[in-house]
Amino acid sequence: MGAIDDRLAELGIELPAPFAAPPGVNFLFERVHVHDGLAHISGHGPMDGERVLAAGDVGGALGVGAAAGAGRLTALSILASLRAELGDLDRIERWVKATGFVNVAPGFNSMPAVVNGFSELVLEVWGPEAGAHARSAIGVAALPFDWPVEVEAIVALRA
Amino acid sequence: MGAIDDRLAELGIELPAPFAAPPGVNFLFERVHVHDGLAHISGHGPMDGERVLAAGDVGGALGVGAAAGAGRLTALSILASLRAELGDLDRIERWVKATGFVNVAPGFNSMPAVVNGFSELVLEVWGPEAGAHARSAIGVAALPFDWPVEVEAIVALRA
Amino acid sequence: MGAIDDRLAELGIELPAPFAAPPGVNFLFERVHVHDGLAHISGHGPMDGERVLAAGDVGGALGVGAAAGAGRLTALSILASLRAELGDLDRIERWVKATGFVNVAPGFNSMPAVVNGFSELVLEVWGPEAGAHARSAIGVAALPFDWPVEVEAIVALRA
Repeated sequence: MGAIDDRLAELGIELPAPFAAPPGVNFLFERVHVHDGLAHISGHGPMDGERVLAAGDVGGALGVGAAAGAGRLTALSILASLRAELGDLDRIERWVKATGFVNVAPGFNSMPAVVNGFSELVLEVWGPEAGAHARSAIGVAALPFDWPVEVEAIVALRA
Repeated sequence: MGAIDDRLAELGIELPAPFAAPPGVNFLFERVHVHDGLAHISGHGPMDGERVLAAGDVGGALGVGAAAGAGRLTALSILASLRAELGDLDRIERWVKATGFVNVAPGFNSMPAVVNGFSELVLEVWGPEAGAHARSAIGVAALPFDWPVEVEAIVALRA
Repeated sequence: MGAIDDRLAELGIELPAPFAAPPGVNFLFERVHVHDGLAHISGHGPMDGERVLAAGDVGGALGVGAAAGAGRLTALSILASLRAELGDLDRIERWVKATGFVNVAPGFNSMPAVVNGFSELVLEVWGPEAGAHARSAIGVAALPFDWPVEVEAIVALRA
Protein backbone atom coordinates (compact mmCIF):
# COMPACT_ATOMS: atom_id res chain seq x y z
CA MET A 1 0.00 0.00 0.00
CA GLY A 2 1.22 3.48 -0.83
CA ALA A 3 1.33 6.51 1.44
CA ILE A 4 -1.96 7.95 0.14
CA ASP A 5 -3.71 4.57 0.48
CA ASP A 6 -2.40 4.45 4.08
CA ARG A 7 -3.71 7.95 4.69
CA LEU A 8 -7.15 7.01 3.28
CA ALA A 9 -7.25 3.94 5.55
CA GLU A 10 -6.23 6.09 8.54
CA LEU A 11 -9.13 8.45 7.76
CA GLY A 12 -11.50 5.47 7.36
CA ILE A 13 -12.17 6.41 3.73
CA GLU A 14 -13.04 3.71 1.20
CA LEU A 15 -13.12 4.73 -2.44
CA PRO A 16 -16.13 3.96 -4.63
CA ALA A 17 -15.86 2.07 -7.94
CA PRO A 18 -14.35 4.21 -10.73
CA PHE A 19 -16.82 6.38 -12.66
CA ALA A 20 -18.52 4.34 -15.43
CA ALA A 21 -21.27 5.05 -17.95
CA PRO A 22 -24.77 4.19 -16.71
CA PRO A 23 -26.88 1.98 -19.04
CA GLY A 24 -27.81 3.77 -22.27
CA VAL A 25 -25.06 6.38 -21.93
CA ASN A 26 -22.07 6.35 -24.27
CA PHE A 27 -18.83 7.79 -22.82
CA LEU A 28 -16.68 9.21 -25.61
CA PHE A 29 -14.01 10.56 -23.28
CA GLU A 30 -11.32 9.39 -20.90
CA ARG A 31 -11.86 9.77 -17.17
CA VAL A 32 -8.31 11.08 -16.88
CA HIS A 33 -5.91 12.16 -19.61
CA VAL A 34 -2.21 12.32 -18.76
CA HIS A 35 0.02 14.60 -20.81
CA ASP A 36 3.47 15.98 -20.04
CA GLY A 37 3.38 15.46 -16.28
CA LEU A 38 -0.18 16.68 -15.74
CA ALA A 39 -3.31 14.58 -15.30
CA HIS A 40 -6.39 16.33 -16.69
CA ILE A 41 -9.42 14.94 -14.86
CA SER A 42 -12.78 14.90 -16.66
CA GLY A 43 -15.85 16.38 -14.99
CA HIS A 44 -16.94 14.01 -12.22
CA GLY A 45 -19.98 14.01 -9.94
CA PRO A 46 -21.01 12.01 -6.86
CA MET A 47 -20.82 8.52 -8.42
CA ASP A 48 -20.09 4.98 -7.27
CA GLY A 49 -19.24 3.25 -10.55
CA GLU A 50 -22.35 3.84 -12.68
CA ARG A 51 -24.56 4.64 -9.69
CA VAL A 52 -25.60 8.27 -9.00
CA LEU A 53 -25.22 8.96 -5.25
CA ALA A 54 -26.80 12.43 -5.07
CA ALA A 55 -29.06 14.39 -7.40
CA GLY A 56 -31.06 17.61 -7.48
CA ASP A 57 -30.56 21.37 -7.55
CA VAL A 58 -28.88 23.08 -4.61
CA GLY A 59 -31.02 25.57 -2.72
CA GLY A 60 -34.03 23.58 -4.01
CA ALA A 61 -34.05 19.79 -3.69
CA LEU A 62 -30.81 19.83 -1.64
CA GLY A 63 -29.61 22.09 1.15
CA VAL A 64 -26.05 23.43 1.23
CA GLY A 65 -24.89 20.77 3.74
CA ALA A 66 -26.11 17.86 1.61
CA ALA A 67 -24.57 19.53 -1.45
CA ALA A 68 -21.19 19.90 0.27
CA GLY A 69 -21.49 16.18 1.07
CA ALA A 70 -22.01 15.57 -2.65
CA GLY A 71 -18.87 17.64 -3.26
CA ARG A 72 -16.98 15.27 -0.96
CA LEU A 73 -18.41 12.23 -2.80
CA THR A 74 -17.29 13.85 -6.05
CA ALA A 75 -13.73 14.05 -4.69
CA LEU A 76 -13.90 10.34 -3.79
CA SER A 77 -15.09 9.45 -7.32
CA ILE A 78 -12.18 11.47 -8.75
CA LEU A 79 -9.71 9.65 -6.47
CA ALA A 80 -11.13 6.31 -7.65
CA SER A 81 -10.64 7.36 -11.30
CA LEU A 82 -7.11 8.58 -10.57
CA ARG A 83 -6.21 5.29 -8.84
CA ALA A 84 -7.66 3.31 -11.77
CA GLU A 85 -5.85 5.39 -14.40
CA LEU A 86 -2.54 6.05 -12.64
CA GLY A 87 -2.24 2.68 -10.90
CA ASP A 88 -1.05 4.33 -7.69
CA LEU A 89 -2.22 7.58 -6.03
CA ASP A 90 1.36 8.19 -4.84
CA ARG A 91 2.18 9.20 -8.42
CA ILE A 92 0.40 12.50 -7.66
CA GLU A 93 2.93 15.13 -6.63
CA ARG A 94 0.43 17.89 -5.99
CA TRP A 95 -2.96 19.36 -6.84
CA VAL A 96 -2.99 22.32 -9.24
CA LYS A 97 -6.48 23.51 -10.19
CA ALA A 98 -10.15 22.59 -9.74
CA THR A 99 -13.32 24.01 -11.26
CA GLY A 100 -16.59 23.29 -9.46
CA PHE A 101 -19.93 23.67 -11.23
CA VAL A 102 -22.97 23.72 -8.94
CA ASN A 103 -26.52 22.93 -10.14
CA VAL A 104 -28.37 25.86 -8.56
CA ALA A 105 -31.99 26.65 -7.77
CA PRO A 106 -32.99 30.30 -8.38
CA GLY A 107 -31.54 32.59 -5.73
CA PHE A 108 -28.77 30.24 -4.51
CA ASN A 109 -25.24 31.60 -4.79
CA SER A 110 -23.21 29.91 -2.02
CA MET A 111 -21.36 27.78 -4.57
CA PRO A 112 -18.02 28.10 -2.71
CA ALA A 113 -19.52 26.34 0.36
CA VAL A 114 -20.60 23.43 -1.88
CA VAL A 115 -17.25 23.09 -3.65
CA ASN A 116 -15.55 23.27 -0.23
CA GLY A 117 -16.80 19.68 0.27
CA PHE A 118 -14.44 18.70 -2.56
CA SER A 119 -11.52 20.87 -1.44
CA GLU A 120 -11.75 19.74 2.20
CA LEU A 121 -11.35 16.10 1.23
CA VAL A 122 -8.32 16.85 -0.96
CA LEU A 123 -6.70 18.92 1.82
CA GLU A 124 -7.50 16.23 4.44
CA VAL A 125 -5.76 13.55 2.38
CA TRP A 126 -2.84 15.48 0.83
CA GLY A 127 -2.37 18.18 3.49
CA PRO A 128 -2.03 21.96 3.11
CA GLU A 129 1.01 21.91 0.81
CA ALA A 130 0.43 19.20 -1.80
CA GLY A 131 -3.35 19.57 -1.53
CA ALA A 132 -3.49 23.33 -2.14
CA HIS A 133 -5.07 24.32 -5.46
CA ALA A 134 -6.47 27.25 -7.42
CA ARG A 135 -10.24 26.98 -7.85
CA SER A 136 -13.33 28.46 -9.45
CA ALA A 137 -16.94 27.95 -8.35
CA ILE A 138 -19.79 28.58 -10.77
CA GLY A 139 -23.58 28.22 -10.53
CA VAL A 140 -25.10 26.49 -13.55
CA ALA A 141 -28.51 25.56 -14.95
CA ALA A 142 -28.06 21.78 -15.24
CA LEU A 143 -25.54 18.97 -14.80
CA PRO A 144 -25.39 15.43 -16.22
CA PHE A 145 -27.46 12.87 -14.27
CA ASP A 146 -28.92 15.84 -12.34
CA TRP A 147 -25.77 15.91 -10.18
CA PRO A 148 -25.80 18.74 -7.62
CA VAL A 149 -22.11 19.37 -8.33
CA GLU A 150 -19.50 18.52 -10.98
CA VAL A 151 -15.76 19.04 -10.55
CA GLU A 152 -12.96 18.89 -13.12
CA ALA A 153 -9.35 19.21 -11.98
CA ILE A 154 -5.66 19.10 -12.85
CA VAL A 155 -3.00 17.35 -10.75
CA ALA A 156 0.76 17.27 -11.28
CA LEU A 157 2.53 13.90 -11.35
CA ARG A 158 5.98 12.99 -10.02
CA ALA A 159 8.71 12.98 -12.66
CA MET B 1 -1.87 17.72 -48.35
CA GLY B 2 -1.12 16.40 -44.90
CA ALA B 3 -2.36 13.17 -43.34
CA ILE B 4 -5.22 14.84 -41.48
CA ASP B 5 -6.31 16.73 -44.61
CA ASP B 6 -6.27 13.37 -46.45
CA ARG B 7 -8.37 11.83 -43.69
CA LEU B 8 -10.88 14.71 -43.86
CA ALA B 9 -11.13 14.26 -47.65
CA GLU B 10 -11.60 10.50 -47.19
CA LEU B 11 -14.48 11.20 -44.80
CA GLY B 12 -15.96 13.74 -47.24
CA ILE B 13 -15.55 16.53 -44.68
CA GLU B 14 -14.99 20.12 -45.81
CA LEU B 15 -14.04 22.64 -43.16
CA PRO B 16 -15.96 25.91 -42.84
CA ALA B 17 -14.25 29.33 -42.89
CA PRO B 18 -12.35 30.05 -39.65
CA PHE B 19 -14.41 31.62 -36.85
CA ALA B 20 -14.66 35.41 -37.34
CA ALA B 21 -16.49 38.19 -35.51
CA PRO B 22 -19.98 38.91 -36.90
CA PRO B 23 -20.72 42.58 -37.73
CA GLY B 24 -20.88 44.77 -34.63
CA VAL B 25 -18.94 42.30 -32.47
CA ASN B 26 -15.41 43.07 -31.32
CA PHE B 27 -13.18 40.02 -30.74
CA LEU B 28 -10.55 40.83 -28.15
CA PHE B 29 -9.10 37.31 -28.04
CA GLU B 30 -7.18 34.86 -30.18
CA ARG B 31 -9.00 31.87 -31.65
CA VAL B 32 -6.08 29.70 -30.60
CA HIS B 33 -3.17 30.51 -28.31
CA VAL B 34 -0.06 28.33 -28.54
CA HIS B 35 2.23 28.13 -25.53
CA ASP B 36 4.90 25.58 -24.65
CA GLY B 37 3.66 22.78 -26.90
CA LEU B 38 -0.04 23.18 -26.15
CA ALA B 39 -2.66 24.95 -28.24
CA HIS B 40 -5.38 26.49 -26.07
CA ILE B 41 -8.52 26.78 -28.21
CA SER B 42 -11.02 29.56 -27.41
CA GLY B 43 -14.68 28.73 -26.94
CA HIS B 44 -16.16 27.96 -30.37
CA GLY B 45 -19.72 27.27 -31.51
CA PRO B 46 -21.29 26.06 -34.77
CA MET B 47 -19.92 28.79 -37.07
CA ASP B 48 -18.94 29.13 -40.71
CA GLY B 49 -16.74 32.23 -40.62
CA GLU B 50 -19.01 34.89 -39.13
CA ARG B 51 -22.21 32.97 -39.89
CA VAL B 52 -24.09 31.19 -37.06
CA LEU B 53 -25.13 27.71 -38.26
CA ALA B 54 -27.30 26.64 -35.32
CA ALA B 55 -29.02 28.54 -32.51
CA GLY B 56 -31.46 27.96 -29.67
CA ASP B 57 -31.71 26.15 -26.35
CA VAL B 58 -31.46 22.37 -26.24
CA GLY B 59 -34.54 20.57 -25.00
CA GLY B 60 -36.54 23.64 -26.14
CA ALA B 61 -35.89 25.06 -29.62
CA LEU B 62 -33.60 22.14 -30.54
CA GLY B 63 -33.84 18.41 -29.89
CA VAL B 64 -30.86 16.40 -28.72
CA GLY B 65 -30.10 15.09 -32.23
CA ALA B 66 -29.94 18.56 -33.78
CA ALA B 67 -27.85 19.71 -30.83
CA ALA B 68 -25.35 16.85 -31.29
CA GLY B 69 -25.18 17.96 -34.95
CA ALA B 70 -24.31 21.45 -33.69
CA GLY B 71 -21.61 19.82 -31.54
CA ARG B 72 -20.17 18.28 -34.70
CA LEU B 73 -20.28 21.66 -36.49
CA THR B 74 -18.48 23.16 -33.50
CA ALA B 75 -15.70 20.60 -33.92
CA LEU B 76 -15.41 21.57 -37.61
CA SER B 77 -15.18 25.27 -36.71
CA ILE B 78 -12.41 24.43 -34.23
CA LEU B 79 -10.53 22.44 -36.88
CA ALA B 80 -10.81 25.41 -39.26
CA SER B 81 -9.34 27.72 -36.58
CA LEU B 82 -6.57 25.23 -35.81
CA ARG B 83 -5.66 24.94 -39.52
CA ALA B 84 -5.65 28.76 -39.86
CA GLU B 85 -3.51 29.27 -36.73
CA LEU B 86 -1.15 26.28 -36.97
CA GLY B 87 -0.80 26.24 -40.78
CA ASP B 88 -1.11 22.44 -40.84
CA LEU B 89 -3.36 20.11 -38.83
CA ASP B 90 -0.56 17.51 -38.81
CA ARG B 91 1.18 19.65 -36.20
CA ILE B 92 -1.36 18.26 -33.70
CA GLU B 93 0.12 15.29 -31.87
CA ARG B 94 -2.94 14.50 -29.79
CA TRP B 95 -6.07 15.85 -28.11
CA VAL B 96 -5.89 16.50 -24.38
CA LYS B 97 -9.01 18.10 -22.93
CA ALA B 98 -12.37 19.55 -23.99
CA THR B 99 -15.07 21.37 -22.04
CA GLY B 100 -18.55 21.48 -23.59
CA PHE B 101 -21.11 24.03 -22.43
CA VAL B 102 -24.69 23.32 -23.53
CA ASN B 103 -27.41 26.01 -23.67
CA VAL B 104 -30.23 24.16 -21.90
CA ALA B 105 -33.98 24.56 -21.63
CA PRO B 106 -35.41 23.83 -18.15
CA GLY B 107 -35.39 20.11 -17.41
CA PHE B 108 -32.80 19.09 -20.03
CA ASN B 109 -29.71 17.36 -18.67
CA SER B 110 -28.42 15.06 -21.46
CA MET B 111 -25.46 17.36 -22.05
CA PRO B 112 -23.05 14.44 -22.65
CA ALA B 113 -25.12 13.31 -25.67
CA VAL B 114 -24.79 16.81 -27.16
CA VAL B 115 -21.05 17.11 -26.56
CA ASN B 116 -20.64 13.60 -28.04
CA GLY B 117 -21.26 15.27 -31.44
CA PHE B 118 -17.96 17.08 -30.90
CA SER B 119 -16.05 14.09 -29.51
CA GLU B 120 -17.25 11.72 -32.25
CA LEU B 121 -15.85 13.96 -34.98
CA VAL B 122 -12.48 14.24 -33.22
CA LEU B 123 -12.31 10.46 -32.73
CA GLU B 124 -13.38 9.84 -36.36
CA VAL B 125 -10.57 12.01 -37.69
CA TRP B 126 -7.74 11.31 -35.22
CA GLY B 127 -8.69 7.78 -34.13
CA PRO B 128 -9.02 6.29 -30.63
CA GLU B 129 -5.42 7.00 -29.52
CA ALA B 130 -4.57 10.53 -30.66
CA GLY B 131 -8.22 11.60 -30.51
CA ALA B 132 -8.89 10.49 -26.92
CA HIS B 133 -9.44 13.35 -24.48
CA ALA B 134 -10.65 14.19 -20.98
CA ARG B 135 -13.93 16.10 -21.05
CA SER B 136 -16.55 17.94 -19.02
CA ALA B 137 -20.15 18.66 -20.05
CA ILE B 138 -22.10 21.45 -18.35
CA GLY B 139 -25.60 22.86 -18.84
CA VAL B 140 -25.67 26.66 -18.91
CA ALA B 141 -28.16 29.51 -19.08
CA ALA B 142 -26.91 31.24 -22.24
CA LEU B 143 -24.19 31.15 -24.89
CA PRO B 144 -22.90 33.82 -27.30
CA PHE B 145 -24.95 34.15 -30.52
CA ASP B 146 -27.52 31.85 -28.85
CA TRP B 147 -25.34 28.84 -29.80
CA PRO B 148 -26.77 25.53 -28.55
CA VAL B 149 -23.26 24.41 -27.62
CA GLU B 150 -19.81 25.93 -27.05
CA VAL B 151 -16.60 23.93 -26.76
CA GLU B 152 -13.13 24.99 -25.63
CA ALA B 153 -10.24 22.55 -25.85
CA ILE B 154 -6.52 21.89 -25.49
CA VAL B 155 -4.42 19.94 -28.00
CA ALA B 156 -0.75 18.93 -27.76
CA LEU B 157 1.57 19.82 -30.67
CA ARG B 158 4.48 17.83 -32.07
CA ALA B 159 7.87 18.92 -30.76
CA MET C 1 9.06 49.81 -9.56
CA GLY C 2 8.84 47.31 -12.38
CA ALA C 3 7.80 47.94 -15.97
CA ILE C 4 4.20 46.81 -15.43
CA ASP C 5 3.89 48.94 -12.28
CA ASP C 6 5.20 51.88 -14.34
CA ARG C 7 2.63 51.13 -17.04
CA LEU C 8 -0.19 50.96 -14.46
CA ALA C 9 0.93 54.33 -13.04
CA GLU C 10 1.08 55.82 -16.56
CA LEU C 11 -2.51 54.68 -17.13
CA GLY C 12 -3.56 56.09 -13.75
CA ILE C 13 -4.57 52.64 -12.53
CA GLU C 14 -4.38 51.75 -8.83
CA LEU C 15 -4.88 48.13 -7.89
CA PRO C 16 -7.40 47.16 -5.20
CA ALA C 17 -6.46 45.04 -2.16
CA PRO C 18 -5.93 41.37 -3.07
CA PHE C 19 -9.06 39.20 -3.06
CA ALA C 20 -9.86 38.01 0.49
CA ALA C 21 -12.70 36.01 2.03
CA PRO C 22 -15.60 38.15 3.28
CA PRO C 23 -16.72 37.50 6.90
CA GLY C 24 -18.32 34.08 7.32
CA VAL C 25 -16.78 32.67 4.13
CA ASN C 26 -14.03 30.05 4.31
CA PHE C 27 -11.58 30.06 1.37
CA LEU C 28 -10.18 26.57 0.84
CA PHE C 29 -8.20 27.49 -2.26
CA GLU C 30 -5.24 29.56 -3.35
CA ARG C 31 -5.86 32.78 -5.28
CA VAL C 32 -3.07 31.77 -7.65
CA HIS C 33 -1.30 28.43 -8.00
CA VAL C 34 2.06 28.38 -9.77
CA HIS C 35 3.22 25.15 -11.37
CA ASP C 36 5.88 24.54 -14.00
CA GLY C 37 6.03 28.07 -15.38
CA LEU C 38 2.30 28.70 -15.43
CA ALA C 39 0.23 30.63 -12.91
CA HIS C 40 -3.31 29.23 -12.64
CA ILE C 41 -5.54 32.04 -11.39
CA SER C 42 -8.66 31.13 -9.38
CA GLY C 43 -12.04 32.54 -10.37
CA HIS C 44 -12.11 36.23 -9.41
CA GLY C 45 -14.88 38.82 -9.52
CA PRO C 46 -15.03 42.59 -9.03
CA MET C 47 -13.53 42.73 -5.51
CA ASP C 48 -11.48 45.16 -3.45
CA GLY C 49 -10.07 42.88 -0.74
CA GLU C 50 -13.18 41.37 0.85
CA ARG C 51 -15.51 44.07 -0.51
CA VAL C 52 -17.85 43.27 -3.45
CA LEU C 53 -17.71 46.19 -5.94
CA ALA C 54 -20.51 45.10 -8.32
CA ALA C 55 -23.38 42.64 -8.02
CA GLY C 56 -26.47 41.54 -9.93
CA ASP C 57 -27.45 39.74 -13.11
CA VAL C 58 -26.52 41.23 -16.47
CA GLY C 59 -29.42 42.20 -18.69
CA GLY C 60 -31.47 42.53 -15.48
CA ALA C 61 -30.01 44.49 -12.54
CA LEU C 62 -27.02 45.64 -14.64
CA GLY C 63 -26.73 46.85 -18.21
CA VAL C 64 -23.97 45.63 -20.51
CA GLY C 65 -21.85 48.77 -19.95
CA ALA C 66 -21.88 48.44 -16.17
CA ALA C 67 -21.15 44.72 -16.55
CA ALA C 68 -18.14 45.40 -18.81
CA GLY C 69 -16.98 47.81 -16.08
CA ALA C 70 -17.27 44.92 -13.61
CA GLY C 71 -15.17 42.85 -16.05
CA ARG C 72 -12.49 45.54 -15.85
CA LEU C 73 -12.66 45.55 -12.03
CA THR C 74 -12.29 41.77 -12.14
CA ALA C 75 -9.07 42.17 -14.14
CA LEU C 76 -7.78 44.63 -11.51
CA SER C 77 -8.58 42.17 -8.71
CA ILE C 78 -6.69 39.47 -10.61
CA LEU C 79 -3.68 41.77 -11.05
CA ALA C 80 -3.73 42.50 -7.31
CA SER C 81 -3.72 38.75 -6.55
CA LEU C 82 -0.93 38.16 -9.07
CA ARG C 83 1.18 40.93 -7.53
CA ALA C 84 0.58 39.53 -4.03
CA GLU C 85 1.41 35.96 -5.06
CA LEU C 86 4.25 36.55 -7.54
CA GLY C 87 5.85 39.51 -5.74
CA ASP C 88 6.32 41.36 -9.03
CA LEU C 89 4.02 41.61 -12.07
CA ASP C 90 7.12 41.67 -14.31
CA ARG C 91 7.43 37.94 -13.69
CA ILE C 92 4.53 37.51 -16.15
CA GLU C 93 5.87 36.76 -19.60
CA ARG C 94 2.51 36.60 -21.33
CA TRP C 95 -1.20 35.85 -20.98
CA VAL C 96 -2.39 32.45 -22.22
CA LYS C 97 -6.08 31.78 -21.54
CA ALA C 98 -9.09 33.30 -19.81
CA THR C 99 -12.60 31.96 -19.17
CA GLY C 100 -15.31 34.49 -18.37
CA PHE C 101 -18.56 33.42 -16.73
CA VAL C 102 -21.36 35.99 -16.87
CA ASN C 103 -24.34 35.98 -14.47
CA VAL C 104 -27.17 36.44 -16.98
CA ALA C 105 -30.81 37.48 -16.81
CA PRO C 106 -33.15 35.53 -19.14
CA GLY C 107 -32.66 36.57 -22.77
CA PHE C 108 -29.18 38.13 -22.37
CA ASN C 109 -26.44 36.61 -24.51
CA SER C 110 -23.87 39.38 -25.15
CA MET C 111 -21.39 37.71 -22.81
CA PRO C 112 -18.41 38.56 -25.06
CA ALA C 113 -19.09 42.31 -24.62
CA VAL C 114 -18.98 41.84 -20.83
CA VAL C 115 -15.78 39.79 -20.80
CA ASN C 116 -14.23 42.38 -23.16
CA GLY C 117 -14.00 44.63 -20.08
CA PHE C 118 -11.48 42.14 -18.70
CA SER C 119 -9.61 41.59 -21.98
CA GLU C 120 -9.34 45.32 -22.75
CA LEU C 121 -7.58 46.00 -19.45
CA VAL C 122 -5.11 43.16 -20.01
CA LEU C 123 -4.37 44.37 -23.56
CA GLU C 124 -4.05 47.99 -22.38
CA VAL C 125 -1.43 47.04 -19.80
CA TRP C 126 0.50 44.25 -21.57
CA GLY C 127 -0.06 45.29 -25.20
CA PRO C 128 -1.22 43.23 -28.20
CA GLU C 129 1.59 40.64 -28.07
CA ALA C 130 2.06 39.67 -24.41
CA GLY C 131 -1.56 40.48 -23.58
CA ALA C 132 -3.16 38.32 -26.30
CA HIS C 133 -5.03 35.28 -24.98
CA ALA C 134 -7.46 32.54 -25.93
CA ARG C 135 -10.85 33.02 -24.26
CA SER C 136 -14.28 31.58 -23.66
CA ALA C 137 -17.41 33.48 -22.57
CA ILE C 138 -20.31 31.63 -20.97
CA GLY C 139 -23.67 32.75 -19.54
CA VAL C 140 -24.44 31.16 -16.19
CA ALA C 141 -27.25 30.99 -13.63
CA ALA C 142 -25.38 32.32 -10.58
CA LEU C 143 -21.97 33.45 -9.36
CA PRO C 144 -20.49 33.74 -5.84
CA PHE C 145 -21.40 36.98 -4.02
CA ASP C 146 -23.86 37.64 -6.87
CA TRP C 147 -20.97 38.90 -9.02
CA PRO C 148 -22.04 39.90 -12.54
CA VAL C 149 -18.89 38.28 -13.93
CA GLU C 150 -16.18 35.83 -12.82
CA VAL C 151 -12.92 35.25 -14.68
CA GLU C 152 -10.32 32.52 -14.25
CA ALA C 153 -7.10 32.66 -16.26
CA ILE C 154 -3.66 31.22 -16.96
CA VAL C 155 -0.51 33.32 -17.43
CA ALA C 156 2.98 32.16 -18.39
CA LEU C 157 5.92 33.23 -16.20
CA ARG C 158 9.47 34.11 -17.25
CA ALA C 159 11.96 31.27 -16.86
